Amino acid sequence: MATSYRFAASLRRASLTSRAPARFQKLRPASQVRWTGNTSATSEPHQPDNKGTVKGAPAPAKAVKFTSETYPELQRNSKFTNLTQEHVDWFKNLLGSESAVIDGLSKDASADIEPFNSDWMRKYRGHAKLVVKPQSTEEVSKILKYCNENMLAVVPQGGNTGLVGGSVPVFDEIVINLAKMDKIRSFDQVSGILVADAGVILEVADNYLAEKKHIFPLDLGAKGSCQIGGNVATNAGGLRLLRYGSLHGNVLGIEAVLPDGTIVDDLSKLRKNNTGYDIKQLFIGGEGTIGIITAISILCPQRSEAVNVAYFGLESYDKAQEAFREAKKYLGEILSAFEMMDGRSQNLFKKASGKKLPLEEEHPFYCLIETSGSNTDHDSEKLQNFLEHVMESGIVSDGVLAQDQTQIGELWGCREGVPEHLGHWGGVYKYDLSIPISEMYDLVNATRERLTKAGLVGDDESHPAVDVVGYGHMGDANLHLNVPVRRYDKAVEKELEPFVYEWVQKRNGSISAEHGLGIAKKPFIGYSRNGTFLKLMKQIKDLYDPNGIMNPYKYI
Amino acid sequence: MATSYRFAASLRRASLTSRAPARFQKLRPASQVRWTGNTSATSEPHQPDNKGTVKGAPAPAKAVKFTSETYPELQRNSKFTNLTQEHVDWFKNLLGSESAVIDGLSKDASADIEPFNSDWMRKYRGHAKLVVKPQSTEEVSKILKYCNENMLAVVPQGGNTGLVGGSVPVFDEIVINLAKMDKIRSFDQVSGILVADAGVILEVADNYLAEKKHIFPLDLGAKGSCQIGGNVATNAGGLRLLRYGSLHGNVLGIEAVLPDGTIVDDLSKLRKNNTGYDIKQLFIGGEGTIGIITAISILCPQRSEAVNVAYFGLESYDKAQEAFREAKKYLGEILSAFEMMDGRSQNLFKKASGKKLPLEEEHPFYCLIETSGSNTDHDSEKLQNFLEHVMESGIVSDGVLAQDQTQIGELWGCREGVPEHLGHWGGVYKYDLSIPISEMYDLVNATRERLTKAGLVGDDESHPAVDVVGYGHMGDANLHLNVPVRRYDKAVEKELEPFVYEWVQKRNGSISAEHGLGIAKKPFIGYSRNGTFLKLMKQIKDLYDPNGIMNPYKYI
Repeated sequence: MATSYRFAASLRRASLTSRAPARFQKLRPASQVRWTGNTSATSEPHQPDNKGTVKGAPAPAKAVKFTSETYPELQRNSKFTNLTQEHVDWFKNLLGSESAVIDGLSKDASADIEPFNSDWMRKYRGHAKLVVKPQSTEEVSKILKYCNENMLAVVPQGGNTGLVGGSVPVFDEIVINLAKMDKIRSFDQVSGILVADAGVILEVADNYLAEKKHIFPLDLGAKGSCQIGGNVATNAGGLRLLRYGSLHGNVLGIEAVLPDGTIVDDLSKLRKNNTGYDIKQLFIGGEGTIGIITAISILCPQRSEAVNVAYFGLESYDKAQEAFREAKKYLGEILSAFEMMDGRSQNLFKKASGKKLPLEEEHPFYCLIETSGSNTDHDSEKLQNFLEHVMESGIVSDGVLAQDQTQIGELWGCREGVPEHLGHWGGVYKYDLSIPISEMYDLVNATRERLTKAGLVGDDESHPAVDVVGYGHMGDANLHLNVPVRRYDKAVEKELEPFVYEWVQKRNGSISAEHGLGIAKKPFIGYSRNGTFLKLMKQIKDLYDPNGIMNPYKYI
Repeated sequence: MATSYRFAASLRRASLTSRAPARFQKLRPASQVRWTGNTSATSEPHQPDNKGTVKGAPAPAKAVKFTSETYPELQRNSKFTNLTQEHVDWFKNLLGSESAVIDGLSKDASADIEPFNSDWMRKYRGHAKLVVKPQSTEEVSKILKYCNENMLAVVPQGGNTGLVGGSVPVFDEIVINLAKMDKIRSFDQVSGILVADAGVILEVADNYLAEKKHIFPLDLGAKGSCQIGGNVATNAGGLRLLRYGSLHGNVLGIEAVLPDGTIVDDLSKLRKNNTGYDIKQLFIGGEGTIGIITAISILCPQRSEAVNVAYFGLESYDKAQEAFREAKKYLGEILSAFEMMDGRSQNLFKKASGKKLPLEEEHPFYCLIETSGSNTDHDSEKLQNFLEHVMESGIVSDGVLAQDQTQIGELWGCREGVPEHLGHWGGVYKYDLSIPISEMYDLVNATRERLTKAGLVGDDESHPAVDVVGYGHMGDANLHLNVPVRRYDKAVEKELEPFVYEWVQKRNGSISAEHGLGIAKKPFIGYSRNGTFLKLMKQIKDLYDPNGIMNPYKYI
């Protein structure tokens, strides 16, 4: 018989302290931190905005090590031509406007070029002497054709918010920045299909769609800076993937320029088009290595009127899996996020942030779920039914449900605040992994056991590692394995690698679930892809970019 | 002020006569009918089942014209080797079991081979003398390697339910039938990810998933015969696309064999994997021209507990567009189908079928909507709110809501019965097109005006065309333009082509929204794809299949 226990009895209004406004204040110099986690980029002062200018005080350039020093095994490929004044003049002649070319060859423009040469994490830094900002697809075409004929290497760059160093040069590659291609071309209110230039800022696109009661089917912490072309080029994942699916399904068409200047006009405004190989898919996640995306056509869903967020504690990872299964069943079509945080990550978040957690008692695991739907009453009732069910059946130990927009923000803060606050003790080793859900948390336990056995993790200063924790997009089987450390330590690194990659490889997991390859993951691709697949990748690269000028030293 | 009119007043139980059991009885010989519509294949007697055997009485082989006769411009490519006894012995030696090889070379096996040589529409017929049925990926690999080395052309074949002649040979290509690869490999209850052999019948997969309260994210009339590998190879669209999206988003991984025997193991069980070019996408919709899909991994949603269907009449196509917009808004996450039928197609359906339509009065347009959700009460209320809104605001003129499963079937029958009953007068010219929704119906009007002006359409026997009608998956902007005719007439065809294709081309539409290219659409691909894109397609074909042995004479 069902017990008479009602969830309502334990359902309390979330009473949280408001969040500290300053984010990323705990960031340590890049050399001590491996920033591969899903951290928000919006408040990072060094990050260039829409126009390529830097918000706030620029980071001291000296603080950023050149990538060529961090990766001494990388050598500039001598097949590439060195930039000359003649080249620069050609670009100036083509692009006209002073603001479209940053010329660091004929004069010292290092301060102007710096934001394009290095990434917002201050981890990667190139030696580019030229930045060009085309304003049309035709200009991109002429630029690439010229570079290809003259063997000038290039780096396509969107908002430069990536986490793997893919959008900044390594040596003297010319930066082709898409910021000036920022027009929304069309939106069809009936089909929900948006066509826009690659350089449109994600948030600008989403705000535009909000007025039309639609949403962009992708959401990211860096939405204020990242560009939709870059999102597509890196196949960004983000917070809405569980609900709206990947860009491979939502992007209906692209316009792209190949290295030889060919404009591929596959900017379909059709949801269905079954006439040939879906070649555009190669550009989605191609990270600018076979061409430059200049515009996209994307299917945008209706914006949901009702949004609810609940946060609850659970006894075990098995219970979290059960909760996810039940959430899919009870919330089905309105479930828009299912995030998991282990108790350790929430404890460290609490310690570092000084904030109270939403639940008074401690639990080994926590989950945050979000629903988005068209009817407030229905969604609340569904969520209530779900919560009653998981409470009564003992799947969930305790929980709270946000009562207003502020509380929604506060509950999300307990999940979104984790990455930044884990840096509190000095640094974090971070891994962005995809592993079948059933085994996902085993890796966190295995890694913790390994570091514990090696005597590297503990409560006092004598241990380099503070703890080994896991959190992430459970609904997408995307785990962020994090090892917060007091100091950078070779012994810790030796225990972590290749252990983590081998563990993931054995489960046919992915060593990069949503961040891509760039320069950071290139050496490790073999753990997620076999030799046959790498050969196929190389074929594609050689087919489209036989001279290898596109984003060299990265990806493949 | 809002009127006090309530939808409930006009909401009536649908009282329909039950459907006539026999389908396709009006089919005319293939030469007189262009069957490119979305017709169900399940009750077609000539169609081979799971094991490749034919249900009911086989169609007389003589009735089916050879494709080589219908398309006299096609010539067998002399680079392909003629099949010898030595080849046949090699296959028998490899595949062992008697049932795995149908040998039409050393003996007369035409009756056995016929179901593999011709399609269920009896429109395409090849001259194959050999059918092989591998049971494993390794066998597929050995077969392709051997064929590639010996320049033996092949046709990969799934359930052979396609509509464009892509799955049957033209000349003497060897048929590689996947029916014996019919194992479900795994299903993860938490993530909803199914991994299965290519030869699994769609309905078998869906029934398996139903037991686990999930659904296959694709539904088709031919689900009882088509195979999931074929569905992926042809990028099938179907009835659930509006809700669950295309296979490009849902297929997470594939295992495929390249012509040289290379096994591409990209059978990811991960929702997110951002490590390299998404090469599997080329096989989705590649129609077996660059390799054979041997297994897929696919994300399957939870099965909805509640399903509702409503049918309503509208004054104009503009109102139908408005209704679609409002349906997206009011029904958002539960909308699973939005179908449009013009009044003319419903009238002809009524005349030909002898059935009553759900609404007593006639309307210029009709729509059918389906909702699928997790909560019966909520869904009913949403639908009720939507219907009240569209009735009160005058978007919809009248409507009915199905009260039970039988009525759901009856309402769907008014949509699904259209293609077959349009053949009543003799034949139908059919086009499967995708056009931006706002202009979609303009083509039907333009075509009707054109035929009327030419004096070709009218009520009496002196006019070849009965009418020009339009219906289709409005939610996907997928129009089925149909011209039911009393007799095949060159004058009608001359008015239709290239007019229809040119019209679609001008709107950047697709000449094949969901049926693919095969042999039927190959000549017309230029209307949907420009020269640049065709060049890129040819590059891909040459890259993977340099000898051109895969499904020749089709696609590209």
